[in-house]
Amino acid sequence: MNLEVIAIGDELLSGHTLNTNVKVISEALNSAGFNVRRHLTLPDEAELLKKGLEESLSRVPLVICTGGLGPTCDDLTKSIVSDLFGRELKQDPDLLLDLERRFPGKAISIQNQALVPVGAKIFTNPNGTASGLLITQGEKKMILMPGVPKEMEPMLYDHVIPYLMEYIPPKEREHRRCIHFYTISESRIDPLLRKLQEEYPNLKFSIYPNFGLVDVHVSQRSKDAEESGRLLDEACAKIQKEFASNSFVSKSGSIEDSVHELLLEKKLTLSLAESCTGGAIGSVFTSLSGASNYFLGGIIAYSYEVKEKILNVKRETLEKYGAVSPETVKEMFEGAIECTRSDYAIAVSGILGPSGAVPGKPVGTVWAAVGRKGQEPHIWNLNLAATSRQIARAKAVNYVLGELYRQLSKTD
Amino acid sequence: MNLEVIAIGDELLSGHTLNTNVKVISEALNSAGFNVRRHLTLPDEAELLKKGLEESLSRVPLVICTGGLGPTCDDLTKSIVSDLFGRELKQDPDLLLDLERRFPGKAISIQNQALVPVGAKIFTNPNGTASGLLITQGEKKMILMPGVPKEMEPMLYDHVIPYLMEYIPPKEREHRRCIHFYTISESRIDPLLRKLQEEYPNLKFSIYPNFGLVDVHVSQRSKDAEESGRLLDEACAKIQKEFASNSFVSKSGSIEDSVHELLLEKKLTLSLAESCTGGAIGSVFTSLSGASNYFLGGIIAYSYEVKEKILNVKRETLEKYGAVSPETVKEMFEGAIECTRSDYAIAVSGILGPSGAVPGKPVGTVWAAVGRKGQEPHIWNLNLAATSRQIARAKAVNYVLGELYRQLSKTD
Repeated sequence: MNLEVIAIGDELLSGHTLNTNVKVISEALNSAGFNVRRHLTLPDEAELLKKGLEESLSRVPLVICTGGLGPTCDDLTKSIVSDLFGRELKQDPDLLLDLERRFPGKAISIQNQALVPVGAKIFTNPNGTASGLLITQGEKKMILMPGVPKEMEPMLYDHVIPYLMEYIPPKEREHRRCIHFYTISESRIDPLLRKLQEEYPNLKFSIYPNFGLVDVHVSQRSKDAEESGRLLDEACAKIQKEFASNSFVSKSGSIEDSVHELLLEKKLTLSLAESCTGGAIGSVFTSLSGASNYFLGGIIAYSYEVKEKILNVKRETLEKYGAVSPETVKEMFEGAIECTRSDYAIAVSGILGPSGAVPGKPVGTVWAAVGRKGQEPHIWNLNLAATSRQIARAKAVNYVLGELYRQLSKTD
Repeated sequence: MNLEVIAIGDELLSGHTLNTNVKVISEALNSAGFNVRRHLTLPDEAELLKKGLEESLSRVPLVICTGGLGPTCDDLTKSIVSDLFGRELKQDPDLLLDLERRFPGKAISIQNQALVPVGAKIFTNPNGTASGLLITQGEKKMILMPGVPKEMEPMLYDHVIPYLMEYIPPKEREHRRCIHFYTISESRIDPLLRKLQEEYPNLKFSIYPNFGLVDVHVSQRSKDAEESGRLLDEACAKIQKEFASNSFVSKSGSIEDSVHELLLEKKLTLSLAESCTGGAIGSVFTSLSGASNYFLGGIIAYSYEVKEKILNVKRETLEKYGAVSPETVKEMFEGAIECTRSDYAIAVSGILGPSGAVPGKPVGTVWAAVGRKGQEPHIWNLNLAATSRQIARAKAVNYVLGELYRQLSKTD
């Protein structure tokens, strides 16, 4: 079934707020087998909002909206949608009771938040005051959800998608595999994908550069999960075979999840010595619940003194070769293992720019050491050619995670 | 002038890629005085793409598109826009020469990338093969930019906005102040804003909760920069007066930029001892160019052993009070100062969930210590009530930055 996703709010159009909701909603609905055809962002202005909603409803049978359900005067979605469907807004007594119980003393806004278009289905919101709503008229359905992500997301996953799957289940589902490539470029992978596309005309091959990684998605919409799975596995195996040492297939789609799972599964521990990445690698691991089972800690060694004092990098190494050198990252790597007694360690030191370049070491010179306790680490220059500081850092993180994945996948 | 921003690409509609481009474009154009009225995301499908572009052009005099300008078969924007404007696509000899010089040996795609609708203005792209284009017909203008952010952004700032400012400068500009509130809630600020809105009916007050901070934007579109500035400063001063110890006004709009500037200006150094934030605070500072002038380093003390061995937290403190306690963060704070000899330090230890709660310490218990060398640090429980791990961490970072800002702003 085709649908459109509409986000409502001036803060999105002004560029103040990044629209993460449409990504989350689209990802969830596409995986469930629905077909997202258009995204739309509309302002908190009655006329324009009404016109945009009306146009969407005329194009597709299902419209999903997020935002504009709060109790303040700029929240217009509910009354405009009621108008659009010719429904009266009436207070729902059960909803009012629930809101009064959960938010005692907030009399005025609670009264508004309990108003519901006659005949609408209510999706409860345990994280806020704005309920979700589903309004149906003939073949057309519109779903309204709050705009705050931490209210919208549980409602989407726990109520909206289960409801759609029960009452208007898509005939086909989307089946998908993600393959991550590290340390090779898009242009080396492209010819194989073109060949495979001819061989498998019913599969969809998409290629996305992703900050130093290249992600390939292979997918198919079909009714037959088994047949799709067989085809997808077959195509993925051919890709894997050609790039065995530079790729892996994952379900989650992210390299950090894959490394996280390998570390947990193999019961190995990890520590870090970060200079230019400044905590970004630690931040990636510790954002994953369960990281405390393997992640012991790290040293953000931004200054010479911290490198020397905590990681035991020799002053003469720093003076002779500089902080950005294979010699220094090797000693940082050893220092991290020594400090924490971890099984694996990652050390990174580089120049991310825009300033900081020295003769012979341009911006983008980034040395990394990744390896196991008691063994020689793999040490290499990531060579992150001139680009923004943010992008270079994101690439550095992905490159070292890719290398760690490679090593871990060969380890017992 | 009203405009709409259109992003083109299946990867946006599938939810694979977060649409950061429309935020960047909208922020830049709104600040320049233009008025972004709608965002639209369209698929790589000729019919739907053409229809969406046509509708936008019928609504507003200026449409800005990003994406779909690559050399592969799913990149359709250029040919569809040429059709729409009734222009032939012709090879631009200068562009072809430039591309051949920069990308030798990529013959086929270069030929395509040098095709330009007759009469279009070309914006050069030093970071890729897809040029930007401006096509004008009567009162209507459409601008095409590449979809890769690192190609789109320099083109937008260096070429597109300067062009628009020269040839169709908005009559009014947007003038804006951002006020950040920390450790107070939206509902405490709201009544004052409502009062001020009555007093200043021509100013626009917007309030955005931002992971533990509350951001208030006060803005006005006007021709008279001086008068607007005076009004905005007056209104901001009234807000500041009421919440003197919990708010600050910034130009950049981000708390990390404000802390960064204060540390540089006052020539003070900083170090970190992070447990539950796991590198996220370090990551925030080191993403800012120039941080090496004040940021000495940090210890990501995820395990007991790292807390003891590097930060000198006493085993008995950990055993008696636990890792998440005011006693432990105080010793972590002292350890960070001791290790790095920094002027200021931040220490954080907490339970971000979903697992890890212990009796008396629910998920969301996060202790922090922020202070200056040789002085008693400010130690408090951030009390991050049940929410996702990601949100709790983002709030923890903002809370400690707010406290550091408060202390730094009082320091000579």
